[in-house]
Amino acid sequence: MLELPHMSYFSILKKDQHTKARTGIIHTAHGDVKTPLFNPIGTKGAVKSIAAEEMRFWGAEMLLANTYHLWMRPGDALIAKAGGLHKFMNWKGAIFTDSGGFQAFSLSKMVKISDQGVSFRSEIDGTMHNLTPEVSMQIQLNLGSDIAVVLDDFPGYPATDKQVAASISRTFDWAKRSKLEHDRIVARTVNPGQKLWGITQGSTFPEMRAESARLTRTLDFVGYAIGGEAVGEPEEEMYKAVDATIPHLEEDKPKHLLGVGTPEQIVQAVARGVDSFDCVIPTREARHGKLYVNLKPGDPLGVGYTTVNITNESTREDFSPVDNTCNCYCCLNFTRSYIRHLFMSGEPLGIRLATMHNLRFYLNLMDRIRTAIDAENFKELSDTYRHRKGLPE
Amino acid sequence: MLELPHMSYFSILKKDQHTKARTGIIHTAHGDVKTPLFNPIGTKGAVKSIAAEEMRFWGAEMLLANTYHLWMRPGDALIAKAGGLHKFMNWKGAIFTDSGGFQAFSLSKMVKISDQGVSFRSEIDGTMHNLTPEVSMQIQLNLGSDIAVVLDDFPGYPATDKQVAASISRTFDWAKRSKLEHDRIVARTVNPGQKLWGITQGSTFPEMRAESARLTRTLDFVGYAIGGEAVGEPEEEMYKAVDATIPHLEEDKPKHLLGVGTPEQIVQAVARGVDSFDCVIPTREARHGKLYVNLKPGDPLGVGYTTVNITNESTREDFSPVDNTCNCYCCLNFTRSYIRHLFMSGEPLGIRLATMHNLRFYLNLMDRIRTAIDAENFKELSDTYRHRKGLPE
Repeated sequence: MLELPHMSYFSILKKDQHTKARTGIIHTAHGDVKTPLFNPIGTKGAVKSIAAEEMRFWGAEMLLANTYHLWMRPGDALIAKAGGLHKFMNWKGAIFTDSGGFQAFSLSKMVKISDQGVSFRSEIDGTMHNLTPEVSMQIQLNLGSDIAVVLDDFPGYPATDKQVAASISRTFDWAKRSKLEHDRIVARTVNPGQKLWGITQGSTFPEMRAESARLTRTLDFVGYAIGGEAVGEPEEEMYKAVDATIPHLEEDKPKHLLGVGTPEQIVQAVARGVDSFDCVIPTREARHGKLYVNLKPGDPLGVGYTTVNITNESTREDFSPVDNTCNCYCCLNFTRSYIRHLFMSGEPLGIRLATMHNLRFYLNLMDRIRTAIDAENFKELSDTYRHRKGLPE
Repeated sequence: MLELPHMSYFSILKKDQHTKARTGIIHTAHGDVKTPLFNPIGTKGAVKSIAAEEMRFWGAEMLLANTYHLWMRPGDALIAKAGGLHKFMNWKGAIFTDSGGFQAFSLSKMVKISDQGVSFRSEIDGTMHNLTPEVSMQIQLNLGSDIAVVLDDFPGYPATDKQVAASISRTFDWAKRSKLEHDRIVARTVNPGQKLWGITQGSTFPEMRAESARLTRTLDFVGYAIGGEAVGEPEEEMYKAVDATIPHLEEDKPKHLLGVGTPEQIVQAVARGVDSFDCVIPTREARHGKLYVNLKPGDPLGVGYTTVNITNESTREDFSPVDNTCNCYCCLNFTRSYIRHLFMSGEPLGIRLATMHNLRFYLNLMDRIRTAIDAENFKELSDTYRHRKGLPE
């Protein structure tokens, strides 16, 4: 019998000589995605005011959708009936779903966490729900995402070492249960090609970060998400936690840093070996009129980017584009003065154009990162971004 | 000296044999526009959540923008500085502006109307303003629209015959002043090709409608808007008023019916000789989830279209498009079930897709009307629409 050549799930294309950064490709059931990768957030099955096709056109290859929100409304059963979330929202790329745990914990009322799972009261209709590792798998498989993650136990922030130890132990237990359930039913779902990733915890304790990574690794997931970050801890703590986690996971597997971050945080995390990100920053800040602007090489500010608050009086008669280095639809067609007018008048087109621009900024940043790694000058890019925030060397 | 051939402002292409409907072209300073024509509403210099380029792609050739709103914010001086409204909003087609009078009257506080003009307090910042015929011309010329209209005096609805007679007289006086001011300054503005149209009033009194038309005609405008309609009067009164107005205006000049209307009202008004329309219905109803759906020929309902309320429970598991005869982006890519989910979740993409669809429905309707006139079967189309509403023959 002819043996088919082994097709690995994650291909590393190039490793940086000075940092742990690398470029690669994750081969998902809905196409290849290039890493380092940014996942725009489509919380409820839509990126705020943006059509799926537009995202695709700008170079987005994977979106993150929130399991909790879609479970509550319209319900995962309806989405399965529609043929899965890809078909429901007509998104031709890949989809990453979270476990639903973090939102159940933070958005609902009367939350109880036990070894069994998370029970809570819905914010929408007051009904009671139980989110167990098994239920999270069932929902994510009904959504049919390409990357699902295990249900994990987030210890809160700040947390004591005892709380963190308990969180690690429960997260490990839930990871085993998640994996068993996923293996049991994945073949009979709308996306049999869905892959399950593990999650590591450990809060700000480097030893516990390492321990969580070592435990999770024993379950041999195809990829890992690093959880419990960007929850209010100082930025240095986040980098320390990433540094304590990554060496204990297989180098040839992709790693996602949940909920991160600013452009400079993304660059610094890539330097530490992270391959994938998701964050509400570009879309949320767009809604508040905060727009990202690239600085040209040699700009006296000496940094990679700045931001402009489009509602400032100073943009009233500014007939230049938001970012004259940007080729997005907003920057090619409209002036700061016009975007400001749309915001001041409450015209929804303003938020749409701002969202478009900020997402394009993030997607372009990832492209710059990948290009820099490939051209062997990623260190210069990361030094620029470190400089801006006075980050530790 | 070589004489250039006369280029008329309005070319009539085809006249219907059974009704007063006709197809034509208005030659504006920003391109030809085909009539009968629907102007989507870009109140504040933007069509709700839609980019100008999208409107153009769907076949819109002229937009209506509201003078009052743009005067109040961001101010006509800023827009003139930007090079006019076309450049400010990056719209490549033609623009129609109203006089600002109707909004000053209906949206502001402490309105006083005298022979001089309309004085009122701004709803935005409480400042006092005077809208005179001359000021309206100055603002519309700063905006640089392609069709401006004179400031008119709306008698309110219902109105007594005395009020209407006074309104007609003042409207005529203001039309003369508007024309003088327009002639005086048009050459030195951002759009020297702007054309000024007259407005007729007369409320529901056919004799006064006729009198207003006869008076206005003496000023030899290149086109006319019929005002004071769609203000709460019964539909039959509106048709009577149009019938009483049109025969007293030159046949070879274009006529616009301000603020009209539903699809069937548009069809009936075209049959009465109206060439151009503007209305908030498609965009406003889209925001409330009311979507227009074409019925196929032979549908048992026997009518041209129906509407669906997308938030109804009945669309929850409806995986068909909003309108399976429609080729808009919304209908080609998404299901009723998904659009409903976006509305129920408050996702702004829902309103955007609904607006897109309803505008496309209206633009397609105008295309059907033009095609029917051209193919000499407009009577059948108008009978279908008349039948639906039980309209008078």
